[in-house]
Amino acid sequence: MKSNALSALGRRIALPPISWLMQTALSRPKLISLAAGFTDNSTLPVELSRQLLNEILSSPQTGQPALQYGITAGENNLRELTAKHLQKLDGASSANKNYSPARVMITGGSQQLLYMTLEALCDEGDIILVEDPTYFVFLSILQSRGIKARGVKLERDGIDLVHLEKVLEQLKKSGELRRVKALYLVTYFQNPTGATTSLVKKVESLKLLKRFERAAGHPIYLLEDAAYRELRFDHGADVPTALTLPGAKERVIYTGTYSKPFAPGARLGFGILPESLFTVVQRIKGNHDFGSANLLQQLLARALETGLYEQHVAKIQKCYGQKARVMRLALAEYFPANVEIWESGGGLYFWARLPKGISAGVKSKVFQTALKADVLYVPGELCYADDPSRAKRDHELRISFGSASEENIRKGIARLGKVLNKIVR
Amino acid sequence: MKSNALSALGRRIALPPISWLMQTALSRPKLISLAAGFTDNSTLPVELSRQLLNEILSSPQTGQPALQYGITAGENNLRELTAKHLQKLDGASSANKNYSPARVMITGGSQQLLYMTLEALCDEGDIILVEDPTYFVFLSILQSRGIKARGVKLERDGIDLVHLEKVLEQLKKSGELRRVKALYLVTYFQNPTGATTSLVKKVESLKLLKRFERAAGHPIYLLEDAAYRELRFDHGADVPTALTLPGAKERVIYTGTYSKPFAPGARLGFGILPESLFTVVQRIKGNHDFGSANLLQQLLARALETGLYEQHVAKIQKCYGQKARVMRLALAEYFPANVEIWESGGGLYFWARLPKGISAGVKSKVFQTALKADVLYVPGELCYADDPSRAKRDHELRISFGSASEENIRKGIARLGKVLNKIVR
Repeated sequence: MKSNALSALGRRIALPPISWLMQTALSRPKLISLAAGFTDNSTLPVELSRQLLNEILSSPQTGQPALQYGITAGENNLRELTAKHLQKLDGASSANKNYSPARVMITGGSQQLLYMTLEALCDEGDIILVEDPTYFVFLSILQSRGIKARGVKLERDGIDLVHLEKVLEQLKKSGELRRVKALYLVTYFQNPTGATTSLVKKVESLKLLKRFERAAGHPIYLLEDAAYRELRFDHGADVPTALTLPGAKERVIYTGTYSKPFAPGARLGFGILPESLFTVVQRIKGNHDFGSANLLQQLLARALETGLYEQHVAKIQKCYGQKARVMRLALAEYFPANVEIWESGGGLYFWARLPKGISAGVKSKVFQTALKADVLYVPGELCYADDPSRAKRDHELRISFGSASEENIRKGIARLGKVLNKIVR
Repeated sequence: MKSNALSALGRRIALPPISWLMQTALSRPKLISLAAGFTDNSTLPVELSRQLLNEILSSPQTGQPALQYGITAGENNLRELTAKHLQKLDGASSANKNYSPARVMITGGSQQLLYMTLEALCDEGDIILVEDPTYFVFLSILQSRGIKARGVKLERDGIDLVHLEKVLEQLKKSGELRRVKALYLVTYFQNPTGATTSLVKKVESLKLLKRFERAAGHPIYLLEDAAYRELRFDHGADVPTALTLPGAKERVIYTGTYSKPFAPGARLGFGILPESLFTVVQRIKGNHDFGSANLLQQLLARALETGLYEQHVAKIQKCYGQKARVMRLALAEYFPANVEIWESGGGLYFWARLPKGISAGVKSKVFQTALKADVLYVPGELCYADDPSRAKRDHELRISFGSASEENIRKGIARLGKVLNKIVR
């Protein structure tokens, strides 16, 4: 049998580049990984989860519903608590209809919601505008589904609005605007750069999209991925989400997660969607799994209800703040001065940019020498879309302080600094 | 904005008919539902889960990995335990390569695995052969993805092999064989009929599919859904799965679940796939959610390891056996003699067939009168594929003894019997 029975998606789907990095990490036991986007083991709410699950499962009244099937869109109490939580983070009034629990969906991580949203919106050949660089697993979804990514230049405070307008104009001219379904922004402590989108850029992006809708012939959504939002450790003011903006109810798809601030192993994500999209995504969710595990939903609901979630988040923010500080000091000590560093006020990543012309890509001398020195980072090039109209930058590094210990952050940065000092100077 | 931005899937996906039934159930508080496929609340392992989760979360050594990210295909210990568990159920030797843990995938319910398998195999317009009738959520997936279902007549011991051959011949003649990707069988205590497929029918189906592969130009898989397998309460011998057959390693996709025998609220499914398909589905899983929640995986692993899973399953089998007995007696007492009943030796459902010409469909007098009498069942017609070459039968009822109490089973059947006695006699 020469031919296989695979679908176009099945034939197309590529091995994610990150798998190779993870394999590499596993094969070198002394390697310090500054690549993984894992959360810190010591921040995981082990005792807290034990207590809450004990409470839930201590009586049939609360235990049985937690172990039974539930509702496809998620348990109503968790949907309400999630809406309130977002409202509170945004400082919005409880009357604000942009946060209706009826449009909140609970999913198996925000990843699942991103996946289903793309299923609902995009056919093969459709276009999603993305930040350049952006979250690489999102690019993997696009790749597998034959959706084209068009990159928009990213600045420290979010996408370059002038470039966004230019891209939209070009797509209009080429007749491709009708294929554009959404602009995808990772708005807080972005993966991979750590950049946070300012409110004014959210406002202007939404306006720009709106302006091009007539030519597109359909709505163009703003897909706001706020996965890292609660991992904030600077003391600056939080930026409100696009949900606070006029028209958000019709055009903003917001995705968030309890995985990173609480526990990836009790993985739950959530989102708020415009009504017509909500209905479609809910049906898709019905076909995927008719609802995420109730036991995990009850765990999160109880954590939120009791205020213990908030206390936990405050604790881990301190921990990541301390680790980021350690990385900042190590970078100052060990890295050559001509490496540009984007420090972040939250999340799990710093972004480093080598002088132009010096590659940090998978096949580069920098990456290979670092590997020999037992330190791993994510080459920035993996985070750029396959967009024929844009050259991929290959002189950047995503460096994570998420899972490594403070000691290993120092050691890892020292090793990497040694490599860079030889090559970059 | 007249047009919407939805994909073909988004525009096509229909409201699942079962949603309407569930809404109906909720709106009539005195209604006895013999429709829901829920498991019995009293069988849920509340105290057992409490104990096991307490153990897992009592130390950082076991608690932290359970709350951290894991491996896309599932935790290795659970994959090994699952392979052993299936081997044991099949009485297969531990050297049998058809049960390799490397090809076991852990998912968010077996539903997710069915979904991803169809993503890997089928484009719009492809064909899946299904039992007529079959599991209606599977039909919903096909509908949403534009995959055609072709029905094969179902008998008490599995599909009609003569009809299967005829369908394959017809597809060969019409040039559609190259679109056929798999035969989907729910092999144990089938949803909706309760029928169990005999081993000889598995053997012969696999042979038949093989015979038509050359004309198809690619493999045609046997997709065996064994969701209800462990809910056995008769004392007959268990039928081995298609994994025991020669060639299974290359052609059998097996899906199972821990939801029904353990807890739907701690929803986990699993499957064994041929190697090339496994690779593709694993990548798809990476895009969906990069692995199911570790905490639930550790819970199930510990339940299996300690033997407590097996003890629990033995207990719930007794419970369902007793409820099925109650339903059997009530049916004998209250149903007219000219209603044909398919009793089942496991699962959650009995199947009732009214005399021809008397509809039990959603708009029928039977259904509507039953609703007024506050008893709900699933009209059999919802379980038939939209196959233009086959007429849908509408004179059948799926009656579940899963979630109703013994008292409500008796009352519900009495109410239904009263309705039928008026209309059927």
